[in-house]
Amino acid sequence: MSAQTDIGIAMRGGGYYSTHTLGAKAVIESVENWVRDALRHCATLDSGTLSMADFGAADGGTSMALMRRSVEFLRGLIGDRPITLTYTDLPDNDYSALFHLALEGEDALASRPGVFVFAAATSFHQSIFPPESLSFGFSATAMHWLSRLPGNIPGHTHSVGASGATLEAFRDQARRDWESILLHRARELRSGGRLVLVNFCQDEAGHYLGNTGGVNMHDQFNRHWRALLDADVISWDEYERTNFQQSYRTVAELRAPLEPGGKAFKAGLRLEACEARTVRCPYAAEYQCTGDAHKFASEYLGTLRSWSERVFLSGLSAERPLEERRAIVDRLYREYEQDVERSPQGHAMDYVHCYMVLNKQ
Amino acid sequence: MSAQTDIGIAMRGGGYYSTHTLGAKAVIESVENWVRDALRHCATLDSGTLSMADFGAADGGTSMALMRRSVEFLRGLIGDRPITLTYTDLPDNDYSALFHLALEGEDALASRPGVFVFAAATSFHQSIFPPESLSFGFSATAMHWLSRLPGNIPGHTHSVGASGATLEAFRDQARRDWESILLHRARELRSGGRLVLVNFCQDEAGHYLGNTGGVNMHDQFNRHWRALLDADVISWDEYERTNFQQSYRTVAELRAPLEPGGKAFKAGLRLEACEARTVRCPYAAEYQCTGDAHKFASEYLGTLRSWSERVFLSGLSAERPLEERRAIVDRLYREYEQDVERSPQGHAMDYVHCYMVLNKQ
Repeated sequence: MSAQTDIGIAMRGGGYYSTHTLGAKAVIESVENWVRDALRHCATLDSGTLSMADFGAADGGTSMALMRRSVEFLRGLIGDRPITLTYTDLPDNDYSALFHLALEGEDALASRPGVFVFAAATSFHQSIFPPESLSFGFSATAMHWLSRLPGNIPGHTHSVGASGATLEAFRDQARRDWESILLHRARELRSGGRLVLVNFCQDEAGHYLGNTGGVNMHDQFNRHWRALLDADVISWDEYERTNFQQSYRTVAELRAPLEPGGKAFKAGLRLEACEARTVRCPYAAEYQCTGDAHKFASEYLGTLRSWSERVFLSGLSAERPLEERRAIVDRLYREYEQDVERSPQGHAMDYVHCYMVLNKQ
Repeated sequence: MSAQTDIGIAMRGGGYYSTHTLGAKAVIESVENWVRDALRHCATLDSGTLSMADFGAADGGTSMALMRRSVEFLRGLIGDRPITLTYTDLPDNDYSALFHLALEGEDALASRPGVFVFAAATSFHQSIFPPESLSFGFSATAMHWLSRLPGNIPGHTHSVGASGATLEAFRDQARRDWESILLHRARELRSGGRLVLVNFCQDEAGHYLGNTGGVNMHDQFNRHWRALLDADVISWDEYERTNFQQSYRTVAELRAPLEPGGKAFKAGLRLEACEARTVRCPYAAEYQCTGDAHKFASEYLGTLRSWSERVFLSGLSAERPLEERRAIVDRLYREYEQDVERSPQGHAMDYVHCYMVLNKQ
């Protein structure tokens, strides 16, 4: 999922995202108890349709099993009342992959009686649903994408490597976006409705995605991209224009609008639970058991590529033929992969998330 | 829009459909007064969200201008009440093209305040919305696609060329599908809600799409496809397996379930207006003025191709590489086009539709 609307190159389609993100699925399933608690409340709201949303869902693959079980769980609570589930992402998302997954096959979500599946392509930085129409909202690993790029990041490709005014600009954008995301959700949510939000964060130890004490993943991205600049494969302009339009907020930053006096608090949102947790990189964990560096490097770069490829592709000049751009990005991942295979120790895309449950008064 | 779910080759994406179907747009805009009358009723239903649907909308291009004007018209009636518009089609539809069209640009449908756009990929042969949740439903040039193929059509590619038991099987399937489509819509519609349905039909003169007194378009499709069989380009099996999963119902067949005692009537649907009308092929009309046979043949085959290509592609053996299948289908349209250019007189894809307004008691 990405909030960058100005780029014609979407996240990899055809189910590539969900099949290469076992870790993201594990993150989502770790919050299932909280989802059930939230749904228990939503089930009591009224007697009509129970409307659910998955914000920034990509192809829906990482949350599909949770959603299937959630719908079955709800059936036990609300009888045959209709359930709608709307997947949201951006226009270039692969909606066909999403719909095939949700609609087809005996075990499909929409094969359950009384379950109606929809998609929306309106960004979660805007209002997606009519006021007070949503019973339950879910989002995982999506809202770190900012609504705009605050500027290029000198000497790095991600804001975790920014400093000074650049870092401030990213923090400020992240703060305003987060406030706005919550205000839009507050408007959409019914009174008594619940949100379960799982967002990348920086925890108290300063850890964040791919930086939990070992090799820093984002420094590696930057180092390999920089090497392509030094080798004259990409231009200075292209290096500079390659920036992840993201911010990993601290837990305090995520809580701020929800504290008494904060804008989201004033809009009626209340924080019921909030916890930073780390889910280990499944590929690094497997490597610790098997010692198979070749397999690890291949799978590790597969999972990195599933969400980062688009950023590097879109940093390259549009004057290059698409094939050339793809070849350059192939080289980036190949060199990173070779590096991991040579010295695998310490590489790990551990997921550092802040898990939150919110209700609307 | 197609009801064939077993084929991996979708209607041409990237906006090809709507840019090559000026006639379909003209058909839709010809019913605008009826749409406004229907919306006037829907606006009085209650004070909440006014929910609209466009069933079998493909990329949304042919109805987008009507929908924009309808939303503006509604604003004058319902103030700032939210409006939802859900586009439905099948999973392989190009939803990205649809969302770009509906969401982006200053004049976009979703740039209007309080307008929320969604998509669904559930077939209109099933229930798409929760019971009694829809205020207004629209569909144009979609519901002639059947839910299943009743069988191969000996000696022809379309049921208009069928006879005997084959013709009966298609009629029977069309009858059951139409009844079922109406019953699903009856369930989804709120009491007092309206449907405006524009369906291909056979009129009292026996005219139907591409057969209004001149050259019969479907006979031409069959003749050129058959020529590829005779030239050993395609196999007998492939010729036999190429069938439009469609039926052009008569006006009487379309009215039948809505007559007193009919199943849709019993479900609460009432026919307010029903009329068969023909919209002239815009390309043939232009040719009558310009006499430019080359331009006519090219544009005419472009509009035919936009909705028929998938049928021929999917008739070909999956064992052929996709490129080979594409080349064969290219040849079909090229030969048809050359034929039209040589003797353009009489070729015309005139649109013969039955226009209906229904309300739910």
